[in-house]
Amino acid sequence: MKPVINALLFVSAALATGALSSAQAAEPVKEDFKPSSLNQPGKEYPQVNSQGYARFRIEAPKASAVNVSLGLGGQGGTNLVKGEDGAWTGTTAGPMDEGFHYYHLTVDGGTFNDPGTANFYGSVRWESGIEIPAHDQDFYALKNVPHGHVQEILFPSKSTGTSRRAFVYTPPDYGKNPNQRYPVLYLQHGWGENESAWNNQGHANLIMDNLIAAGKSRPFIIVMTYGMTNDIKFGSGLANFDIKPFQTVLIDELIPYVDANFSTLSDRAHRAMAGLSMGGMETKTITLANLDKFSHIGLLSGGTFAMDDVNKTSGFKDKVKLAFVSYGSRELDRPAGNGAPRQGGDPRENAAALKNAGINSVFYVSPDTAHEFQSWRRSLREFAPLLFKD
Amino acid sequence: MKPVINALLFVSAALATGALSSAQAAEPVKEDFKPSSLNQPGKEYPQVNSQGYARFRIEAPKASAVNVSLGLGGQGGTNLVKGEDGAWTGTTAGPMDEGFHYYHLTVDGGTFNDPGTANFYGSVRWESGIEIPAHDQDFYALKNVPHGHVQEILFPSKSTGTSRRAFVYTPPDYGKNPNQRYPVLYLQHGWGENESAWNNQGHANLIMDNLIAAGKSRPFIIVMTYGMTNDIKFGSGLANFDIKPFQTVLIDELIPYVDANFSTLSDRAHRAMAGLSMGGMETKTITLANLDKFSHIGLLSGGTFAMDDVNKTSGFKDKVKLAFVSYGSRELDRPAGNGAPRQGGDPRENAAALKNAGINSVFYVSPDTAHEFQSWRRSLREFAPLLFKD
Repeated sequence: MKPVINALLFVSAALATGALSSAQAAEPVKEDFKPSSLNQPGKEYPQVNSQGYARFRIEAPKASAVNVSLGLGGQGGTNLVKGEDGAWTGTTAGPMDEGFHYYHLTVDGGTFNDPGTANFYGSVRWESGIEIPAHDQDFYALKNVPHGHVQEILFPSKSTGTSRRAFVYTPPDYGKNPNQRYPVLYLQHGWGENESAWNNQGHANLIMDNLIAAGKSRPFIIVMTYGMTNDIKFGSGLANFDIKPFQTVLIDELIPYVDANFSTLSDRAHRAMAGLSMGGMETKTITLANLDKFSHIGLLSGGTFAMDDVNKTSGFKDKVKLAFVSYGSRELDRPAGNGAPRQGGDPRENAAALKNAGINSVFYVSPDTAHEFQSWRRSLREFAPLLFKD
Repeated sequence: MKPVINALLFVSAALATGALSSAQAAEPVKEDFKPSSLNQPGKEYPQVNSQGYARFRIEAPKASAVNVSLGLGGQGGTNLVKGEDGAWTGTTAGPMDEGFHYYHLTVDGGTFNDPGTANFYGSVRWESGIEIPAHDQDFYALKNVPHGHVQEILFPSKSTGTSRRAFVYTPPDYGKNPNQRYPVLYLQHGWGENESAWNNQGHANLIMDNLIAAGKSRPFIIVMTYGMTNDIKFGSGLANFDIKPFQTVLIDELIPYVDANFSTLSDRAHRAMAGLSMGGMETKTITLANLDKFSHIGLLSGGTFAMDDVNKTSGFKDKVKLAFVSYGSRELDRPAGNGAPRQGGDPRENAAALKNAGINSVFYVSPDTAHEFQSWRRSLREFAPLLFKD
């Protein structure tokens, strides 16, 4: 089966600016800027203020132009201005959306990262990252609760002729009782990212630690590997994307390795898959073709389940115990035809149709966020408690 | 006890250039350049050739000057030259030493990373990295052997009021037999680095996988955490460095957490500590003050054991089962007084004196390498097989 994949999901990533509209930028800028939490040790810039403005400072005394790719939508980022001390500074023209944003600098025509911040893999490169403190950041905060471990594993892959990397989150009580076995969620990143995204940008481990400590989620294992998505050139469409190589790695190599090396419950009732953006498309394609292996499915800003999918997929109604779909509100607010959600029908209407048909269909909208990680952090927070409710 | 720490160890890091002398650069440059193995996906530059030259290409069409910090010693790195296509290119004036080197760019007076390569934490910042293929790189190659896992853990630390991060390498057969317990090596990074260095730059996990697969080392656990070294300003000397905060984290918090959460052998006979550069100084100070907890000690380019240490430390002769000291040959070749090795006596003579006194003293020199990771990769390869030989 060659999957028909929605090329517009790519476009939606390009449209994500992480910015409110300029109409909302009228309030005076408060001078309570603090270093971003993602800054490298000891670095004062970039900074963020309580309204969500970001301020940058780049030392490049002999440069003729410095631009930051982050800014209000449609304004080409933020141009910095050179001061008398030779440093380039500037503030976004309005508040950014809450949460994590990728960005980079353009210095005299070259693309560089901000030396003030840590780097995060996105857009098929290590990008700079900035965190706009969110009103609900407590759910992914590092707290004094029992913490699970994140294991970097190298699993053998005959189909690709190498050892491949994955990260495995094991919950806090994992290993304490050798007889305890756990369900597993396979969780995929988006286009341009890799297997490090869900923990580094998404804080999946901390989200789970906090949910488990609060008794809101059953403890389970999360496995994150590279979805082999980045051979696709951005904007070239996905018509030629072949799911087979990744499906082989996941189904024939990674899952057997995880079940052999971790204390898993290896039946389909205790295996889930979810992904964001292009990882959601991979999730949909792979799970619907392998319902003997998966029971719970999550598409985060990455497609929708329509009744057409249900009707075309043998056993959907019996075997899919959870069909979870989520989006950032700014994705849904986009005019019809100009973004992912409208392709394949309105995802809200689709979710309602599945529910009417007796399927455990859950639809979640992240308020005031776009095609970015704050939408997906919140989506995981909503999704995890619904999993593996035996 | 306030440790007397050798400030010159800092200087030795500053002197490490990763370069042969310019006298050796006479041979014509071979045009067999290939992308460095550390490049970001799809990036053609930086490149290395079979002689160890490095070549750079930076797009910054409007810049007025681009310099790469890597180059022959004493030459201030490598200045790039702007081509007609607007890209800046240049090749080191001679071959670099084999192995890993940190570097960064100076673009119009600003410090940036090379957008072609991955980033590695050193010099208290995320630096660019390049790998000069080594003739002996097989020992840290990713091979088709059973692989251990590297776990990211967050352990509670009352003394610092937070959850602290560590990485834990568990050998390939870890967890297969719930009754099997393993010795533990605590392994420290150097000044300017953090707990990610030994795996990212050092390939400690792959070195151990390969040693274990070849039957050369007993399987053991390795724990790597942040040594709290970077509050010290580079070049300001270490007279004010207080080992207490890190010693408290390690001895009172991390070791009990590891013994409670992993299948360890928790007696002193099965606990080792080693570190590179400033991590070696920490190792020496902490182990000699805690010989009830450690039996095997390694100082990698980070100090030496003199008979004075033996005589001043109660129980040294009985309790220290291995006193391992190593250096890169270029550190030892430096004129007396201009580097770490001469402080506290010649490390070769010290090692011989300990051996004569009946102590299991082992001294290793990494050929043709400086105060850099190739010395420490090789040192771990030599050190690991000597550990925990019950």
